[in-house]
Amino acid sequence: MYQAPVTYPLERASSIFPGREVVGPDARVSYGEMMRRVKRLACGLAALGVGRGDVVAVADFNSVRFMELAYAAGLVNAVLMPVNYRLPPALVSEILGEAQPKVLLYSRPFRELVGAPGASGARRLALEDAYEGLLGRPGDCGAEVDPDADYVLLFTSGTTGKPKGVLYRQWKMLAGAMGIAGQLSLYDTPARLSSGDVILSLIPMFHILSWGSIFIAPMLGSKLVFIEKFDPAAVARAVEEEGVTWMNAVPTMIYMLLEAGLRFRGLKVLVGGSPLPKRLAERMKEAGMAYSLIYGATDMLAASISIRTDRTRSDDDLRLTTHPVPYARLRVVKPDGSPAAPGEIGEIYFQAPWMPEGYWRNPEKTRESFVGGWFRTGDIGSPTPDGGVRVLDRLKDAVKSGGEWIPTSILESIILEVPGVRLAAVVPVEDERWGERPVAFYVGHAGEEEVRRHLEAAYREGRIAKWWIPDHIMRIGDMPLTSTGKINKLALRDLARARLRGEA
Amino acid sequence: MYQAPVTYPLERASSIFPGREVVGPDARVSYGEMMRRVKRLACGLAALGVGRGDVVAVADFNSVRFMELAYAAGLVNAVLMPVNYRLPPALVSEILGEAQPKVLLYSRPFRELVGAPGASGARRLALEDAYEGLLGRPGDCGAEVDPDADYVLLFTSGTTGKPKGVLYRQWKMLAGAMGIAGQLSLYDTPARLSSGDVILSLIPMFHILSWGSIFIAPMLGSKLVFIEKFDPAAVARAVEEEGVTWMNAVPTMIYMLLEAGLRFRGLKVLVGGSPLPKRLAERMKEAGMAYSLIYGATDMLAASISIRTDRTRSDDDLRLTTHPVPYARLRVVKPDGSPAAPGEIGEIYFQAPWMPEGYWRNPEKTRESFVGGWFRTGDIGSPTPDGGVRVLDRLKDAVKSGGEWIPTSILESIILEVPGVRLAAVVPVEDERWGERPVAFYVGHAGEEEVRRHLEAAYREGRIAKWWIPDHIMRIGDMPLTSTGKINKLALRDLARARLRGEA
Repeated sequence: MYQAPVTYPLERASSIFPGREVVGPDARVSYGEMMRRVKRLACGLAALGVGRGDVVAVADFNSVRFMELAYAAGLVNAVLMPVNYRLPPALVSEILGEAQPKVLLYSRPFRELVGAPGASGARRLALEDAYEGLLGRPGDCGAEVDPDADYVLLFTSGTTGKPKGVLYRQWKMLAGAMGIAGQLSLYDTPARLSSGDVILSLIPMFHILSWGSIFIAPMLGSKLVFIEKFDPAAVARAVEEEGVTWMNAVPTMIYMLLEAGLRFRGLKVLVGGSPLPKRLAERMKEAGMAYSLIYGATDMLAASISIRTDRTRSDDDLRLTTHPVPYARLRVVKPDGSPAAPGEIGEIYFQAPWMPEGYWRNPEKTRESFVGGWFRTGDIGSPTPDGGVRVLDRLKDAVKSGGEWIPTSILESIILEVPGVRLAAVVPVEDERWGERPVAFYVGHAGEEEVRRHLEAAYREGRIAKWWIPDHIMRIGDMPLTSTGKINKLALRDLARARLRGEA
Repeated sequence: MYQAPVTYPLERASSIFPGREVVGPDARVSYGEMMRRVKRLACGLAALGVGRGDVVAVADFNSVRFMELAYAAGLVNAVLMPVNYRLPPALVSEILGEAQPKVLLYSRPFRELVGAPGASGARRLALEDAYEGLLGRPGDCGAEVDPDADYVLLFTSGTTGKPKGVLYRQWKMLAGAMGIAGQLSLYDTPARLSSGDVILSLIPMFHILSWGSIFIAPMLGSKLVFIEKFDPAAVARAVEEEGVTWMNAVPTMIYMLLEAGLRFRGLKVLVGGSPLPKRLAERMKEAGMAYSLIYGATDMLAASISIRTDRTRSDDDLRLTTHPVPYARLRVVKPDGSPAAPGEIGEIYFQAPWMPEGYWRNPEKTRESFVGGWFRTGDIGSPTPDGGVRVLDRLKDAVKSGGEWIPTSILESIILEVPGVRLAAVVPVEDERWGERPVAFYVGHAGEEEVRRHLEAAYREGRIAKWWIPDHIMRIGDMPLTSTGKINKLALRDLARARLRGEA
């Protein structure tokens, strides 16, 4: 990736594809119009005193104005901070307190959330009141855009522990997004992306600016569609009315679309955020959706996406194996520090030109995770013979039993194959003899013995080792979820401990 | 484009697509094998004393060994110099004298050509004798590859005047090649390129390493095919036997393929090097070939490629208009220095991250052509309303009549529409009143009056201005060609002058 400013994709779209549209709950503008609006908006930000390095926090659903603010911040070399509105208010306050935004722009539903004392120094403006005024400035107040300027401050979602901040320079943010665009356009992969696609970006802006969609779509000159909140009916409407051909989503969203009985023949989907269970993948196929899997995170942006190689034999290869995007590298390191061979399990290390310098104002976490020019992802995985990686689990979620890792995602996928199982999660509990042992939870009407028999069958078929089978399998009424819709494994560990002590 | 070393695409291919092949007249090797061979070859070069910055000149047809030498040179941070074997021996000698290669590797047919005294300091080795020995070294002698190391020394083909050298660093060469790959994969364009394509690269290595094919194909993981010398029968064989789906070519090659009666249903072609005449484009379509047009040059690498935008209405838009590849910019500047509006004609200026710093050891030409951060292409063109450029002519070939430019390529294309006209060229001759006036030459059995009547009809249809019609239209038996197969317009100017003086 060349070190270009983040504003480049919009400039290009406004020149080559000026008529293509960005459609959101708040507005419908062409790229040509958006470029003109963003220049005025940059003047609006400048009038608020926002300049190089100043943090502009935005709490809003996905919207045209959010995208425009992201580009206007780039034009004045300011730092955009998309607020993760799914975090609890105390955490939002804490993060805002650390980021010290100069301006905090929020839409009404988030007034309370951002009203906490955290960002006491910030100028607060409700978008519903202020946005048209910010756009009302004439002229072009953009400074010379610097690809090297700090650009976006993101916080990891904190499935396990306190959120960590990551600050990306302009060129790194763009390079990370172009990693996705490059992999999806250069290679044969089910969710191949091209200029003619109409993109529906379901991922919220606080997740790496909607997984880079606000840069990928204008770079391609593709029409881009946002809906306010995820809702199956709204997705169906967008697909129907805007001609959506491609979307990004987490497995939970896919699950909800399918549960709502929706079918999207020919729709291409980039799935990520958590592993895609086998049964959900099969249901996607039945519903006419093609998918590619992406592996990435706030602290590394795009890392790898599934593509067809000479060794790709089945849909399941594409569901389980991802290949590094151009210029990214992945290594798998065994507990003893040696490289894992294909089939062996180890921690995944990542390297790319857009890798961040470290965690924001957190030298301790930086030292832990950025080691010898590599980022320790904290995920466990296994290399494939064709240069790919199977991501198996979060290191913290994996069960380390007798010094060996049990990847819980494989167990969860197998439990989900049992008819009547809707959600499944496996977590470790302390064990005197083995260090840790796995405990399985699931939601659905299947019986616990049925689940156990299915796991034993999987062992007999050679799919799992015998010692991977959880000692305890428990049906629960509901899965605890984190703010970002992932299964809250910390809560499940507590539940497992409590149940095993007979407390719950 | 990230500043990656030129060796990156082969490394990637050997990891993800190790079984895909490179097929040449000399060998058939997989990317996996090629990576291993290139490491040994780097040891072979090191054993010859080749290190960082040393020039390795190679005079060979397109071949697997040429590609391997290009990568091995990268591995030891040396400078590759592909010898343009179509230049006259005196010029080759002069260029070699300037480049002072440390090693000169040639295949037998070029023994005479490179035997001139120019490169007297070089160690000369015939590839037929030495190559296997160079490959015979065990181990891995590559230094740490430096993306910033000087990498390739190219000479412009010199249609007009003495060849100029251009020296590219590793990352710039790769970035230029990836500009082509990016444009052809991100956008809807007839010669869209993907991992599954089988690439036949007809462009000789001395033209920007076969227009970057040796980097593009492994980056995609595509099978790559070379034939020794261009020959319609050999092309037909390659398409048939190797399953070629995509190729690059100059219009003259296309013309010869069609004249040989070949049809290639579904073949995608990237055409460049000179404008594509309308009639030839139509014949390509009839023969089942889809094309995209590329505009570029040794001194700017890839600049622009035709893509479909919202305004693209016809095949002719794709034949005439190209759009900047990602991260490249084009400006069109009128003779008075102001920007040309769509429809107006001016000189094309170019800018891209991979733009060279200047001409090699030629400060004077550098000052002339590299002005204010832009490269003056020496081509005239016209901007389109959707951010594209129509390249019309070489500035030096264009006729400047009464202070206004007449783009000769448009006249040539119209003359080629006359049945029985096979080749056409328009050149300026000095004129006391107008400064210059156009003279047309053509090859074919059509009568001169017939050609004139067709031009007059084109004027009445509004396709050209009346004053563009050449004062003299002359049929000739054969077109003089340059060493690179382009029409030799300097020779035609001399012929025009002589004829008008009644000498020829």
